Amino acid sequence: MTLTDNRQPTTDNFQFRLHSVDPGCAARRSTFITPHGPVELPAFMPVGTLGTVKGLEIGQLRATGTQIVLANAYHLALRPGEEVVRDLGGLHRFMGWDGPILTDSGGFQLYSLAKMTQVAEEKAHFRSHVDGRPLELSPERAIAIQEALGSDVAMVLDHVVPLPNEPEVVRDAAERTIRWADRCRRAATRKDQALFAILQGGLDRDLRLMSARELAAMDFAGYAVGGLSVGESPDEMYRTLDATVPALPADRPRYLMGVGRPEDILEAIRRGIDLFDCVLPTRNGRNAMAFTDRGPLKLRNLQHQRDPRPLEPGCPCPACLRSRGYIRHLFAAGQMLGPILLSIHNVTYYQRLMADARAAISAGRFEDFRQTKLDGWRAARDE
Amino acid sequence: MTLTDNRQPTTDNFQFRLHSVDPGCAARRSTFITPHGPVELPAFMPVGTLGTVKGLEIGQLRATGTQIVLANAYHLALRPGEEVVRDLGGLHRFMGWDGPILTDSGGFQLYSLAKMTQVAEEKAHFRSHVDGRPLELSPERAIAIQEALGSDVAMVLDHVVPLPNEPEVVRDAAERTIRWADRCRRAATRKDQALFAILQGGLDRDLRLMSARELAAMDFAGYAVGGLSVGESPDEMYRTLDATVPALPADRPRYLMGVGRPEDILEAIRRGIDLFDCVLPTRNGRNAMAFTDRGPLKLRNLQHQRDPRPLEPGCPCPACLRSRGYIRHLFAAGQMLGPILLSIHNVTYYQRLMADARAAISAGRFEDFRQTKLDGWRAARDE
Repeated sequence: MTLTDNRQPTTDNFQFRLHSVDPGCAARRSTFITPHGPVELPAFMPVGTLGTVKGLEIGQLRATGTQIVLANAYHLALRPGEEVVRDLGGLHRFMGWDGPILTDSGGFQLYSLAKMTQVAEEKAHFRSHVDGRPLELSPERAIAIQEALGSDVAMVLDHVVPLPNEPEVVRDAAERTIRWADRCRRAATRKDQALFAILQGGLDRDLRLMSARELAAMDFAGYAVGGLSVGESPDEMYRTLDATVPALPADRPRYLMGVGRPEDILEAIRRGIDLFDCVLPTRNGRNAMAFTDRGPLKLRNLQHQRDPRPLEPGCPCPACLRSRGYIRHLFAAGQMLGPILLSIHNVTYYQRLMADARAAISAGRFEDFRQTKLDGWRAARDE
Repeated sequence: MTLTDNRQPTTDNFQFRLHSVDPGCAARRSTFITPHGPVELPAFMPVGTLGTVKGLEIGQLRATGTQIVLANAYHLALRPGEEVVRDLGGLHRFMGWDGPILTDSGGFQLYSLAKMTQVAEEKAHFRSHVDGRPLELSPERAIAIQEALGSDVAMVLDHVVPLPNEPEVVRDAAERTIRWADRCRRAATRKDQALFAILQGGLDRDLRLMSARELAAMDFAGYAVGGLSVGESPDEMYRTLDATVPALPADRPRYLMGVGRPEDILEAIRRGIDLFDCVLPTRNGRNAMAFTDRGPLKLRNLQHQRDPRPLEPGCPCPACLRSRGYIRHLFAAGQMLGPILLSIHNVTYYQRLMADARAAISAGRFEDFRQTKLDGWRAARDE
C-alpha cells in the first residue's frame, strides 16, 4: 500500500482490530474504535437521516443494541443547516446520541432525491428536494458540512449512477469518484473524524478493481462499496462483491452502502464486508411489516386480529411484550404506536442478527449460521 | 347516605383513603386503591382512547409518573371490538399497562363524535364515526363493554349535551343520566371493577345538586362531574364546581371529566376534585406546543432554531435532554420524534404538576403553590 503525505490520521483516534476470519468463508470479526467508542463488526447502522432514527427515542435506539448510527450530510445541510447543528454542540449533542456516528456525504441523494442534478468535475449543481432552491455540492463542501456536523466517520463525495447504464457513464462516474476522494482527503482537517473512501464502478469488475487500487493507495481509514442496490439483481450485487472485496485493504473496515435485506447482509458478510446501513427496518416498520426468523409478517392483515403471540418469540423488544393482535389493532386504528413499535422491533431484529453473526464468526461457524437463517426465512415462504 | 341492595362492592377491591384537606381551601390529599395498585390523588389520567396514549410506549408512559390511564369503551368497542380485547387477555394485557385503568363509557363520544345520534330512554342510536354503520348504546351495553375490557373503573353511560342549551334539554339529560346510572349499577357484575356515577345538569345549580343527591343515594364507588368543558367559560365551570363538589360524598373519589388546562386543574383541586383526564398534553404535543412553568412554547417558531436550552430546566423527561433547537428541527423537518418527544414532555409536565400539588396539599400550602404556578404562567404572557 502506498502511503501519501496526506495519510488519514487513524492511529490515535481510530483503530481497526481484526480478531478472526471465519475458516469457511471470508467473514471477519473485528472492532473499529472511534472517539465515541468501539463498534463491534460486522455491524448494522440504523438510518438517522435528519438526526433521528424515525420514530425511536434515543433510549429506545440504544436498547435495540445499536452501536453506531448513520446520518446524512445532504439532508442536515438543507435542514436545519450544518451551522445550526454545529452551534447546538455538534451532531452528537444535537440528537442526544453519545455513540459513534457516520455521516454519508450526499452523493447518493444527488442521485436519488435532488432535482435536476448536473454533475460537473468541479462540483454538482442541483435543486433542493425540499424547496427547489439551487444548490451546489463539491467534495470540499461535503467535507466542510461533515466537519461542522462532527461525525466520527465522514464519507467522501461520490458520483452515483443508476444501473443498468452505458459503460462510459459508469466509467466516468467511477473515475470522478476517485478524483473527488482525493480532493476530500486533502480538504479534511479534523483529527477526530475518519474519512472513508467510496468505490463506484457499477458491475464492471475492472472499474471496481481499479477503484480499489487507486483508493487504497490514498490510504483511507475505511473503504465503502457504493453504487449497489441501485437497480441490479441480488446475484449481480454478490458477483460484484466477489470481485471487489478481496481487493480492499484487509486492515481497514469495509462498508457496503445502503444494503439491505437480511439475506443480502449475510451474503455480504461472508464475502468480507463489515459494515451496513439500510432504511428497511424502519421504513418497513412504518408500513406494518415485521422481520422475523420465519420471514416477514404483515401486521395489517386480519389474520392477526386475535393472535396472542408476540412477533418473534424470545425477542426482548417492547413490541414483543405485546400480542400481534394489539399491533394489528394499532395499525388498523391508525395509531402512532404501531409504526413506533414495529420500527423498534425491526431494528432490534437486525441488531440481534448482527450480534448472532458476530458470535458465529468468532465460533468459526458462520456458514452454518447463515444457512440456518436462510432455511427459516425460506420455510416461511413455502408454508 | 342511603344504602341500597345493589351497593357497589368497594370494600374488598377498592378503597378510598382521605389523608388530609388543605387548611386554606377544599383541596384533598387521598389514595384510591384498585386491584392494579394505588392511585395517589389528586391525579391526572393521560388519555389512551384506543388502548394507547398516542405516541408513548408503555415504558415511556410509566416514566412520566403516570399512575392511571383512561381508555374509551366507545372507541374500543368499534375498533378492535371489546371481545377481541377480552380474548387477548383484557385491556391491561392488551396494551401492556399493568397499572389501574379507567374506561369512559361512550356518553361523551355519542355527543362529540358519533353521527346522527338520537338518544331515547331505552338506548342511544347513532352511526359509527369510523364507517357509518348504525349502532346502539344502552346503559347495559356500556357496562357489558367495560366488563369485557376489564378496566379497574367503569363509568356509567351519561347523556351529554352542549352548552349553552335550553333548560328543558339540560334537565332531560341530567334526569336521564340518573336513571341510566341506576340501570348501569344494576347491570354491573364484576367485583373487581368499580363503577363511577356521572353528574350532568349543565350550569344549573339545582340540577347539579339534585344529581348529586340522587346518585349519592345509589352509593357509587366514585363520582364524576360531567358535561363541563363543552362550551361554557372557565368562570362558569368554576361556579358550577363551587355549587356541586360540596354535595358529593366526601368518602369517595371525585373526578372532573375532560378537564383540562393546567390552571383549570388547579382551580378544580382547590374545590375538592381528585381526578382528571384531558387530551391536551398529547394533542398539543403533537401540534408542537410544549407546556412549561413560563407558559406554552410553540416549537415550530424560528426563534427556537438555535436555542440550546431545554424546554423546561430541571424536567427529567427525554425531550429535556435535547435543545429547543433540536425539537424545532424535528417539527420543521416533519420527523415523528417531534410529536413523540413533546407528548412525553407534556404528560411529564402534567404529572409533575400533580405530584407537586399533592405535596403542597400535604404541607397545607396549596393556595401558595397555585398562586406561584399562576404567576409563572401569567408572567410569560406579559413578557
